[in-house]
Amino acid sequence: MSTKKGQIKLGAFLMNTGHHVAAWRHPNAWAEHGLEFAHYKHLAQTAEQAKFDMVFLADGVAVRRNHDRASLSRSGQIVHFEPLTLLSALAAATEHIGLVATASTTYNEPYHIARKFASLDYLSAGRAGWNVVTSASEAEAHNFNRETHMEHGLRYERAQEFLQVVKGLWDSWDDDAFVRDKASGLYFEPDKLHVLNHKGKHFSVKGPLNVARPPQGYPVIVQAGASEDGQEFAAQTAEVIFTAQQTLQEAQAFYAAVKGRLARYGRTPDQLKIMPGVFPVVGRTEQEAKEKYDELQNLIHPSVGLALLSGNLGGFDLSSYPLDGPLPDLPETNLNKSRQKLVTDLARRENLTIRQLYQAIAGARGHWTIWGTPQQIADRLEEWFVNDAADGFNIMPPYLPAGLHDFVELVLPILRERGLFRTEYEGRTLRENLGLVRPANQFSARSEERASA
Amino acid sequence: MSTKKGQIKLGAFLMNTGHHVAAWRHPNAWAEHGLEFAHYKHLAQTAEQAKFDMVFLADGVAVRRNHDRASLSRSGQIVHFEPLTLLSALAAATEHIGLVATASTTYNEPYHIARKFASLDYLSAGRAGWNVVTSASEAEAHNFNRETHMEHGLRYERAQEFLQVVKGLWDSWDDDAFVRDKASGLYFEPDKLHVLNHKGKHFSVKGPLNVARPPQGYPVIVQAGASEDGQEFAAQTAEVIFTAQQTLQEAQAFYAAVKGRLARYGRTPDQLKIMPGVFPVVGRTEQEAKEKYDELQNLIHPSVGLALLSGNLGGFDLSSYPLDGPLPDLPETNLNKSRQKLVTDLARRENLTIRQLYQAIAGARGHWTIWGTPQQIADRLEEWFVNDAADGFNIMPPYLPAGLHDFVELVLPILRERGLFRTEYEGRTLRENLGLVRPANQFSARSEERASA
Repeated sequence: MSTKKGQIKLGAFLMNTGHHVAAWRHPNAWAEHGLEFAHYKHLAQTAEQAKFDMVFLADGVAVRRNHDRASLSRSGQIVHFEPLTLLSALAAATEHIGLVATASTTYNEPYHIARKFASLDYLSAGRAGWNVVTSASEAEAHNFNRETHMEHGLRYERAQEFLQVVKGLWDSWDDDAFVRDKASGLYFEPDKLHVLNHKGKHFSVKGPLNVARPPQGYPVIVQAGASEDGQEFAAQTAEVIFTAQQTLQEAQAFYAAVKGRLARYGRTPDQLKIMPGVFPVVGRTEQEAKEKYDELQNLIHPSVGLALLSGNLGGFDLSSYPLDGPLPDLPETNLNKSRQKLVTDLARRENLTIRQLYQAIAGARGHWTIWGTPQQIADRLEEWFVNDAADGFNIMPPYLPAGLHDFVELVLPILRERGLFRTEYEGRTLRENLGLVRPANQFSARSEERASA
Repeated sequence: MSTKKGQIKLGAFLMNTGHHVAAWRHPNAWAEHGLEFAHYKHLAQTAEQAKFDMVFLADGVAVRRNHDRASLSRSGQIVHFEPLTLLSALAAATEHIGLVATASTTYNEPYHIARKFASLDYLSAGRAGWNVVTSASEAEAHNFNRETHMEHGLRYERAQEFLQVVKGLWDSWDDDAFVRDKASGLYFEPDKLHVLNHKGKHFSVKGPLNVARPPQGYPVIVQAGASEDGQEFAAQTAEVIFTAQQTLQEAQAFYAAVKGRLARYGRTPDQLKIMPGVFPVVGRTEQEAKEKYDELQNLIHPSVGLALLSGNLGGFDLSSYPLDGPLPDLPETNLNKSRQKLVTDLARRENLTIRQLYQAIAGARGHWTIWGTPQQIADRLEEWFVNDAADGFNIMPPYLPAGLHDFVELVLPILRERGLFRTEYEGRTLRENLGLVRPANQFSARSEERASA
């Protein structure tokens, strides 16, 4: 069965030892820190053999969890490769799979970002994608000369101008600017160079870029913002959205809301692929899957769980309360009130102990967790796909590499049998495989653009 | 014959189609723009088979030559890979050779640089090096929100603090911090994390770095500054100096001056390797070498040559004068007076025509040009090496890939016969091959460093 929507798009979201907060402690997880290239090479090649659209890497420019040192010392996600360098190395070790790196518009400069992603697009012959984020943590501010994080609205305003500059720099050269005529000595046609001369509120960038126009025109633009600002920004510029959705209904509502915003930017629904994160725990039987999941949950060290809870409860310290007792009544705080209410309501509604509560929120970091047989997991993915909750999924294996193998070997064959997933790559670039058009150069037609460089 | 200094160290300075300004027009040069990974992969693997210490990449964060558009359009060095992404890809395609990228302290932030080079050091298992530059061109300022370039002294002040922060971030973790004990759930030992908390004139950076301590402790620090500030900075921190020297006497004087500065920083002469750039034109006979060189020189398009001259003569436009006539008397300018005097004196002393003058300064961009038989070239390199003018050389092939093949196949065997160059890599890391010690972590012993993260 294949639908009018085509087939499911798949990302392999790779993260050190895996996505579960205690993944590194699992017997089948690679416990080395996230700085083993052989590990990532194996994962990327596995995903490529399985015909995933892309490898996806998250990022932050600080140590991720700013817990107290005792609980921090139990986290497996602290040190890792910088994504652009890692993906560049993976470009040399793969041939077809897309390579998507996260990079912040708040703590970078547009010239660097335009250049590095253009360079990655050349290294990979058209397989680069950029997950545009505005950074969420104060810890990042402290590594970049700031006392406090930039305010949310201002971050999005900067992001918008940032993206405009980056696209302008990618359009510095016409696609056919470089003629390289040895006989006449002409390397490029002067009219096909476009100097940006951008002067805006946040950036003043002259250009041109010292990289030719990327093979894909623009590397694929990915976003993950869920806020009102984030959704609007995505509707305007994103080609892929990575999102956290817990239920079919929520996902459908998000899908309809974001796709509904596209028309006002002259865009059609197929120009934006919505790919929720999925945290699949695959067992050969339902019982085996449940046991696998419980095994992981029980590996969450109480100090990690309590630090996570504290972060969700306005900083309240629960360490003097019994782990297997109920959540006590908490004082009101002004820190992240809505999050505090959400977590407290969950505990009350499901009558959870403190341990059960941190297990409930810790595992997949807010992403859609499904455990079951390969058949059951394929059913759920199909359900979301055919009912307009998703165009594809960003697969977040609980632990690596075994969690990726499970999905590839057990779930994918079922999706293929149903005609829901490819057997071969359709195109040569990430853009082609995702079914996205190659954007034209915004300056190409302008013959008046002949100012001196 | 092997000297007390050991053997010659060699860098392969790779640049698109080659180092000659007209290289791309040569029949044996790869004329594609510098964005073909297969080209660089071939070059790096060739250099590795030949046991070079390192691949070296220059960089600037702007289109390199800010000529008028007509002469710019005849330059083959305009677009190219971003070095850190390219070297990361090359890390996956090589096993032994060092990978040295240039990056500016003026137009970057220390957290990014510390992180990317640490990441490259892990990708390559200890083969990364950073050529620290402060950027020389106004064009770079214009891509980073500035009207003018930062003043020279201030750039070096910033560079010094930048390097201090980067080293502090590389020392965020003890070498043995990550114990990854699955049973107890302890991922790292809390005492072995060192939060930098740097607050200085140019930077405020808290840390820690989200990459473990690099395999080499610090990636190898390379510098190329020739000014008084640059030499002092190099004596304080550099482990390799890349430099432009034209004669044995000049090179000896520079060598003695820089090595003489080391003692005041408690360093010994063997802790800094001085590697002048060499532009070798190899022929099987002297006549063939001369013809090869002339062929290249004649490929310099007059508009490129005149723009280069103009840049060296305070902006004076020579295009209305006969190319094969003498240099006219020039008005005095205030732009780069010393450079103008140097070039004018050269023309008068050697009675050069305008064409001969631009050929003289254009070819190797100020680097030591030697043309001759393999024997003659080996003799010159040996002469500089044994007479304390150099610890090694950064080889700048006139055109690529043929110019690198010539050097590897014709000159290196002679240096090997004389015991002046290795037949196998001595170590596993760039640092080991260069004979440099691995630096200790500056914070490791400090038990009082236990503030909360």
